[in-house]
Amino acid sequence: MPGPVQSIERAAAILRLLAASPGRLGAGEIAGSLGLARGTAHGILRTLELVGFVERDEATGKYQLGAALLHLGTSYLDVNELRSRAINWADALASRSGEAVRIGTLLDGRVLVVHHVFRPDDSLQAMDVGTLLPLHATALGKVLLAHDAHAAASVRDAVLEPYCRRTVTDHKELGRALARVRDNGWASEVEELSIGEAAVAAPIRGHGGLVVGAIGVSGAVERVCDARRVPVPALVAYVRDAARAVSRDLGGTRW
Amino acid sequence: MPGPVQSIERAAAILRLLAASPGRLGAGEIAGSLGLARGTAHGILRTLELVGFVERDEATGKYQLGAALLHLGTSYLDVNELRSRAINWADALASRSGEAVRIGTLLDGRVLVVHHVFRPDDSLQAMDVGTLLPLHATALGKVLLAHDAHAAASVRDAVLEPYCRRTVTDHKELGRALARVRDNGWASEVEELSIGEAAVAAPIRGHGGLVVGAIGVSGAVERVCDARRVPVPALVAYVRDAARAVSRDLGGTRW
Repeated sequence: MPGPVQSIERAAAILRLLAASPGRLGAGEIAGSLGLARGTAHGILRTLELVGFVERDEATGKYQLGAALLHLGTSYLDVNELRSRAINWADALASRSGEAVRIGTLLDGRVLVVHHVFRPDDSLQAMDVGTLLPLHATALGKVLLAHDAHAAASVRDAVLEPYCRRTVTDHKELGRALARVRDNGWASEVEELSIGEAAVAAPIRGHGGLVVGAIGVSGAVERVCDARRVPVPALVAYVRDAARAVSRDLGGTRW
Repeated sequence: MPGPVQSIERAAAILRLLAASPGRLGAGEIAGSLGLARGTAHGILRTLELVGFVERDEATGKYQLGAALLHLGTSYLDVNELRSRAINWADALASRSGEAVRIGTLLDGRVLVVHHVFRPDDSLQAMDVGTLLPLHATALGKVLLAHDAHAAASVRDAVLEPYCRRTVTDHKELGRALARVRDNGWASEVEELSIGEAAVAAPIRGHGGLVVGAIGVSGAVERVCDARRVPVPALVAYVRDAARAVSRDLGGTRW
């Protein structure tokens, strides 16, 4: 079997670098960051520009991601089975719970948000689809971590970044939390990512019972939790019901 | 100067093919569609899978677009200057006009929607960001066509697909409509894409006055147009004001 095509791996690395950069990058910066010869980086960038994956600013000669990627990204959503099966259940969960709903899946050691239903009120909310959230500081991420040995192993070697005072940054404590997620069938997060916010999530299972994603609600801690800072049982039940309904549609449960 | 990197061009062609396909595709189908040797297609697909740009279904061995593209696509939105400059003006236009607002730019002979503000009521609306609309049957598209010689030339050689009875399918009639767009500074579309819907759009200019996008409203024909099926002047003024405001922010006007 032939090995991977090096120029495509390098092109993907360039696109990831541009996605992680807050502004445009010059060909020299890109070559330097990835340890490529300048001519090599140039040839790949010119080809990526030709296919619309990067755009070159006329004035500065620097590069940014291109418009063709936006269409490819939303085309991914169109064929994403998890998302298409979950859309109706996510709407129902948002209206029952009165909170914002997100569906996430694993990508590169983070939670990729593939669907987002706004909290059903007229407050200003930003669309989160396509953003990446940390695994250890979100309810969605804890669900995915608890059921994916590969992701759990990658996190064990990493520093757990603190987002708030209550973010779990101790690996042993995180391990105990993940064991509880597996025992209980749901995960929570209380002011671990943002002050004043809490979340509950449950696993979505695909064919053969494998966890393929997570669905959850998040909102103000005084609505999501009771006075002891524990998620309200009715809300947990809504989330678990929704997760089970999506799993059944995906062929992941036997009842 | 070195030529484009063939394997990257082929990888991009595979991603476009998968984006255009309603379901998953097998390696053989992909090789056949693009005139590639099966081994070549296989090597590219395996590399694209490795970098997360495609996903292979275990059961069927067929391919679909991968999750990493979604994140790249939304990262494109984060660095898109047209969109970031236009967001506040688009919100203001939606609340002044009471209609849905879209911002579009040219991609591969179509209109790529880079921003979408829902009509400010509680009706069910689907997010259009990332979708491609036809140039000749939308107000946004007519604005872009009227100011881009390259796009206009590509449309001249193409069949103008009819979406409704009123879609402009005659090239001469379209040419006259585009001349009016240039004269008036705005474009309209009345039941040319969907029955019962009408739209108004105006050009957004970037550095040097070049048209880099279009902003417009769309909604029920009885709200957007008067009894003679002509767009309501107040609505046209709102759209033109918004387009001018964004253009000024982008450095595209002199006042």
